[in-house]
Amino acid sequence: MSSKRVYIQEVATRDGFQNEARFVDTETKIALIDHLSACGYAKIEVTSFTSPKAIPALRDAEAVMHGIQRRKGVTYTVLVPNVRGAERALSCGVDEVNLVMSVSESHNRTNLRMSREQSFAQLRDVISVVNKTDVAINVSLSTAMGCPMEGDIQQEDVLRWMQRFADLGVHGVTLCDTTGMAFPSQVSALCAAARVRFASLELTLHFHNTRGMALANTLAALAAGVDRFDASLGGLGGCPYAPGATGNVCTEELVHMLELDGYDTAVDLAAILDASARLPGLIGHDVPSQLLKAGRRLDLHAQPCLTADGLPEQRAFVEGA
Amino acid sequence: MSSKRVYIQEVATRDGFQNEARFVDTETKIALIDHLSACGYAKIEVTSFTSPKAIPALRDAEAVMHGIQRRKGVTYTVLVPNVRGAERALSCGVDEVNLVMSVSESHNRTNLRMSREQSFAQLRDVISVVNKTDVAINVSLSTAMGCPMEGDIQQEDVLRWMQRFADLGVHGVTLCDTTGMAFPSQVSALCAAARVRFASLELTLHFHNTRGMALANTLAALAAGVDRFDASLGGLGGCPYAPGATGNVCTEELVHMLELDGYDTAVDLAAILDASARLPGLIGHDVPSQLLKAGRRLDLHAQPCLTADGLPEQRAFVEGA
Repeated sequence: MSSKRVYIQEVATRDGFQNEARFVDTETKIALIDHLSACGYAKIEVTSFTSPKAIPALRDAEAVMHGIQRRKGVTYTVLVPNVRGAERALSCGVDEVNLVMSVSESHNRTNLRMSREQSFAQLRDVISVVNKTDVAINVSLSTAMGCPMEGDIQQEDVLRWMQRFADLGVHGVTLCDTTGMAFPSQVSALCAAARVRFASLELTLHFHNTRGMALANTLAALAAGVDRFDASLGGLGGCPYAPGATGNVCTEELVHMLELDGYDTAVDLAAILDASARLPGLIGHDVPSQLLKAGRRLDLHAQPCLTADGLPEQRAFVEGA
Repeated sequence: MSSKRVYIQEVATRDGFQNEARFVDTETKIALIDHLSACGYAKIEVTSFTSPKAIPALRDAEAVMHGIQRRKGVTYTVLVPNVRGAERALSCGVDEVNLVMSVSESHNRTNLRMSREQSFAQLRDVISVVNKTDVAINVSLSTAMGCPMEGDIQQEDVLRWMQRFADLGVHGVTLCDTTGMAFPSQVSALCAAARVRFASLELTLHFHNTRGMALANTLAALAAGVDRFDASLGGLGGCPYAPGATGNVCTEELVHMLELDGYDTAVDLAAILDASARLPGLIGHDVPSQLLKAGRRLDLHAQPCLTADGLPEQRAFVEGA
């Protein structure tokens, strides 16, 4: 199989940590990001320049951005909600700002306490500030594949919001399955339409594994030509609508599947598994990653001790398929 | 999208319960199976006629088979390891016996304490007994997509074991990803080859979600024309090589995805979710099902209380994509 490049964008230190009750100290964040910078990611979403009151977990955004070592070839992006946040981000020399609003009116009002039009006006101001620099702009459209309050989202609505931001000159758009409502045939159709209509936009898909479909949806997006995915180390990142459910698609599980399927992610799977294994110690609880528990596909197990006739000493496992 | 029939086979009361430390009492098993019988499954693997010493969790196989109400249209199958087990199963009037051996020599010796040739000889004896009746015979080939001790399994080896059983007149073969080592492109290739070579065999795929790929692998199998899947309610069913990892593909997550994608499973998703919700009470611990925690895709959430300007009373959620 010829190898096809897929770009992996790590969001654990932003989308993951912002949901954690325990504050991960600044030096630890910096050490983690420096480790991740050497792992082959195309992009790392470092932090968020929001109000420290709104998201205390990321109140050290400046210190983290100034503290990390920037590695050539990695795009360092940060979430920015408004002009004030953009100015803070620009003063730290970020490579990209990531703006966010929801395709669903209800979710935008709940998440951002604004109407969509208010959000759009605010983000337009951000874009006009950032467009004066050479910093790239990405827009993440939340609830693009379903809203937990409104239900289905029409594909045409997603494309309309993409168009409005494309018209402002952003370089990339991320379609976010914020609460894990996407399903494969929907993903196929949406990605195919988006790629046709916005061929020059950098398109990222951002899946959550809330209902177990994140990797299946990834296959559907790949088949529609998408080559760029957000993912979160350990599967960090929650969903306030589904307490106890898993979060973002787990980076190590995504990379593991893609590499087995012949894609080139450039990500060092062993190195990110090492980093994932340290996450529970940082946040104080287990992470959703199955791969961390099970090991990679070819991490083989020793056979049990065998007797002289070549059979195990004792019945090790019950019959099972 | 035209609706395509997919057949769902429930294995929780066999593959799931056999891994549980707590004995689920006979009346509870019967009530659960009677509930599942009305849920639209094509097949239910009720229990296992193995030695009560080997699998005490299923020591009540006869009582369960005699106690359940048989519903027309549902195939009631049981696992059978040898002629003695087959005779016990036949005396209970099962519709099908399911035989099991591993494609990997190491796994067969570990799991069944026999070489593969010894297993084949034993199963050939079972087949010759059952072939004198009108009871159907399925063979489950374990480790068909990878062995936790040997690693990769050659596709040709899988097809060779299928051929040996096809030659004995079995009506169906299940390819089992026993420890969750399958990946999508492998599944595509194996399923396509198996369907071409054994067009008249009923082909089932049996996935485990050990490394998160069960639903992605299902998509790959569907694309290769497979229309029959084993699944386990709640995601019950463990893997002795990966403590703490998830088990079989979760029935409700499989059905949820398939129905969203336009397939007709005939399974009543609400009814199986009700049954899954009762599992933790039966086995004494949480189940891996994400869908049980998150709810179905369109199980909508109320908006938070709004103020006069149509905004939430308080910031409900942090900004996030």
